[in-house]
Amino acid sequence: MTASPYQALEARFARLGAVREALSVLSWDASTNMPEGGAQSRGEQLATLKVIVHDGLTDPALSDLLAGADGQNDLDSWQRANLAEMRLAVKRAAAMPADLVAAFSKACTECEMTWRKARKQSDFAAVLPAFEKVLGLVRDVGAAKAAVFGKSLYDALLDDYEPGGGTATIDRLFAELAAVLPGMIDRALTLQGKRPAPLAPPGPFPVAAQRALGVTLMERLGFDFGHGRLDISLHPFTGGTPQDVRITTRYDEKDFRQALMGVLHETGHALYELGLPRAWARQPVGDARGMSIHESQSLLIEMQVCRGREFMAFAAPLIRAAFGGEGPAWEAGNLYRLGTRVERGFIRVDADELTYPAHVMLRYRLERALIAGDMALADLPREWNQGMRELLGVVPPNDALGCLQDIHWYDGAWGYFPTYTLGAMNAAQLFQAATAADAAILPGIAAGDFAPLMAWLRANVHGKASSRSTDQIMTEATGRPLETGPYLRHLRARYLED
Amino acid sequence: MTASPYQALEARFARLGAVREALSVLSWDASTNMPEGGAQSRGEQLATLKVIVHDGLTDPALSDLLAGADGQNDLDSWQRANLAEMRLAVKRAAAMPADLVAAFSKACTECEMTWRKARKQSDFAAVLPAFEKVLGLVRDVGAAKAAVFGKSLYDALLDDYEPGGGTATIDRLFAELAAVLPGMIDRALTLQGKRPAPLAPPGPFPVAAQRALGVTLMERLGFDFGHGRLDISLHPFTGGTPQDVRITTRYDEKDFRQALMGVLHETGHALYELGLPRAWARQPVGDARGMSIHESQSLLIEMQVCRGREFMAFAAPLIRAAFGGEGPAWEAGNLYRLGTRVERGFIRVDADELTYPAHVMLRYRLERALIAGDMALADLPREWNQGMRELLGVVPPNDALGCLQDIHWYDGAWGYFPTYTLGAMNAAQLFQAATAADAAILPGIAAGDFAPLMAWLRANVHGKASSRSTDQIMTEATGRPLETGPYLRHLRARYLED
Repeated sequence: MTASPYQALEARFARLGAVREALSVLSWDASTNMPEGGAQSRGEQLATLKVIVHDGLTDPALSDLLAGADGQNDLDSWQRANLAEMRLAVKRAAAMPADLVAAFSKACTECEMTWRKARKQSDFAAVLPAFEKVLGLVRDVGAAKAAVFGKSLYDALLDDYEPGGGTATIDRLFAELAAVLPGMIDRALTLQGKRPAPLAPPGPFPVAAQRALGVTLMERLGFDFGHGRLDISLHPFTGGTPQDVRITTRYDEKDFRQALMGVLHETGHALYELGLPRAWARQPVGDARGMSIHESQSLLIEMQVCRGREFMAFAAPLIRAAFGGEGPAWEAGNLYRLGTRVERGFIRVDADELTYPAHVMLRYRLERALIAGDMALADLPREWNQGMRELLGVVPPNDALGCLQDIHWYDGAWGYFPTYTLGAMNAAQLFQAATAADAAILPGIAAGDFAPLMAWLRANVHGKASSRSTDQIMTEATGRPLETGPYLRHLRARYLED
Repeated sequence: MTASPYQALEARFARLGAVREALSVLSWDASTNMPEGGAQSRGEQLATLKVIVHDGLTDPALSDLLAGADGQNDLDSWQRANLAEMRLAVKRAAAMPADLVAAFSKACTECEMTWRKARKQSDFAAVLPAFEKVLGLVRDVGAAKAAVFGKSLYDALLDDYEPGGGTATIDRLFAELAAVLPGMIDRALTLQGKRPAPLAPPGPFPVAAQRALGVTLMERLGFDFGHGRLDISLHPFTGGTPQDVRITTRYDEKDFRQALMGVLHETGHALYELGLPRAWARQPVGDARGMSIHESQSLLIEMQVCRGREFMAFAAPLIRAAFGGEGPAWEAGNLYRLGTRVERGFIRVDADELTYPAHVMLRYRLERALIAGDMALADLPREWNQGMRELLGVVPPNDALGCLQDIHWYDGAWGYFPTYTLGAMNAAQLFQAATAADAAILPGIAAGDFAPLMAWLRANVHGKASSRSTDQIMTEATGRPLETGPYLRHLRARYLED
């Protein structure tokens, strides 16, 4: 029996999906295990596999198969959605010459390895040549896609992370936030200053105990260690594949809270991956939707759930027991106040919920200027510091605490940063819809029972994978497209009224 | 400028080499990190990459390129050797249908995962169905290759591990060993019985201290942690890539010697990989020569060097210091006698040097019978135990200590086992040639200076990669093809005269 055009496409994309999974595991390994001396050959491996995927997507035989599948009347809605995602992937790939794919991949690997050392030594000049090369290639990539999709350079890059997204929407939403957040930060800090400062639980906090606590909470939330791992890396991330999700963190024996909240954040990402429909594994429609939905899942778990009063009521005794702590510093109310403390800081990943958008807006502004060619990369440290002064009123004392802090740009991820704040807004809107839809969710969290929340997320987000657009997921789950209202309501309730 | 046919081939093989490196890292990860639930998707990844390599090797365009390169007069001897290896790889691939490659890869991944559990529970029946499937596919693979190469089924399988090898030579060499080894074991045990038993250093031996000692000795031998790692796996092995060599071990807190000798063994493999010529990375001629040479490098380090008196004189103080030991059990002479103790045991990887060949001969005999169809797989436990009684006079009490002990068959490696004993013979012959060629080698070992030995190995083995056949490497390095003489001389000196 001959395969139908659609079946033939599924078989081809299954193969490409397996190569993409291999790429993901190899990238995870590069960040967790690989010795420095392995970078050059790993670069060859990653570039080769990316070119293989690219070659697969630009095979001339695909256009006949896509046309044939379009004519099939026997496809269900998921198969139709899969076909649409396939068509988009083919169009994206067709825009990119294979040698650009390879050159970009290798430049990113090299620059990332250089960045690791440059960041340690706070030496921006050391990474600048490799970084210039990456930016040049990023602009080539963006230009190639922009021409085919009829988008601006920046929107073409953004499309890799936020399919269907665009600067028009982001500018409007960010402007609404920018109009009120600075005032909210001022008021929150004033309010905070009038109260006694929360107590810092006394350390040190051994790595083994921190890890064990993280594992316990991951399992309670629903992370399946039969299908995943927790490891250490310089820059925490979620990698691996949906059946083998690898999250990472970094530990500081003087402060357990950063690693703990980081683990819970990545657990949110992981639960999304683990909740994707297995029947569609390695097919485009089975992938996680764009980054703003992915980030909504990490921030829903970290910010909406785990920094909330209900979760802290459940978790405080476990935290106390993990470190053998005693006294008022370990009480749920104190830990809650510690976890919601507002501070104008230098580091995005350490930032509190209220000042975080300012970090994102700075990066969004800078990367747009750099992509547009309105700013020289050599000026980044100065522009960064100036932006920090404007937006947050603080200036980092060195570039390690400034423009060298994030891996993204150095690793070739441009057009990624706005998805963090889009994700934070999605998270607030989704969580408000979830708790309104099921009154058992909040009491469940307080009792350490996350099943009601997970059931809602599986049905409304995880299980839909890429069968719906980001807008459709938000509208079907919350009744409205993304708005700033629920997010600002959440921030006001937590930081100005609580 | 157009690439010459040879240059075009190099570019194609570089790409295939990068995919093979990716396969190696993913296989390492499967044995060290991967959660059980990742097995199914990892199986898809490995099978897909193997098919990609296979497709690359069976591309019809290759025959014109190979013919064109044959006509080039501008190739040096390494390029000529590379071309010969390319041609062989193409011929091997052409013999194998792509769907057989994929089916075999997936069956091996599944069977290996089942074996892991079956071994724990000593339950051969649990793995038998998956194992039958693997054996059936192994025979299909062997038959496909046998037809093209005009070899027997077994020789066709052996060729994957020992290019140029064959049962005719192995049978002759093994017969020479079988004629004298049983008598030597008897005499060694008698001699050993007349002496006071060596003292066992008192434990426990914490894993962290064992690991630190292993790392220290690895570094002294020349292992570069900038290009490699030491990890834990159920079955110790050397994986990764020549620029990122990953060795593994397993620790027992009651006995440090197994892990230590295992680490030194794998270090021998690793030094070979690390010593391959970087200029030929990812090209066929740059690969390690067959398994009997690879095993010669691990056994040269473990058996010839590290279990010898000279090494123990250097290492004993480090070992003692690692565990804070004191007293006669920690003296070099006692540790030497512990490391050369002969015992008729069940487990190959724990076997001493003198009884080890019996373990190999048993497997060689059984796998030939299974491949030939002269024996049913269901009868393996019984035949195994009977063979153990004949060859070593002991019968394992369960299959975990019997036919379930080794990963090889379950993972699809058939025709591999004889290379262990060929490697042991190569090691003895190479080490005798090395110490005869450079009088500084033995005193260097006693002083912890391995540079003279490494210089000889780099020049005579590592640096030649696959530019010479196994026979040529042995003949050029030692003046003779492989013989049993040097090996038996070594065994007599160590076990009957020392």
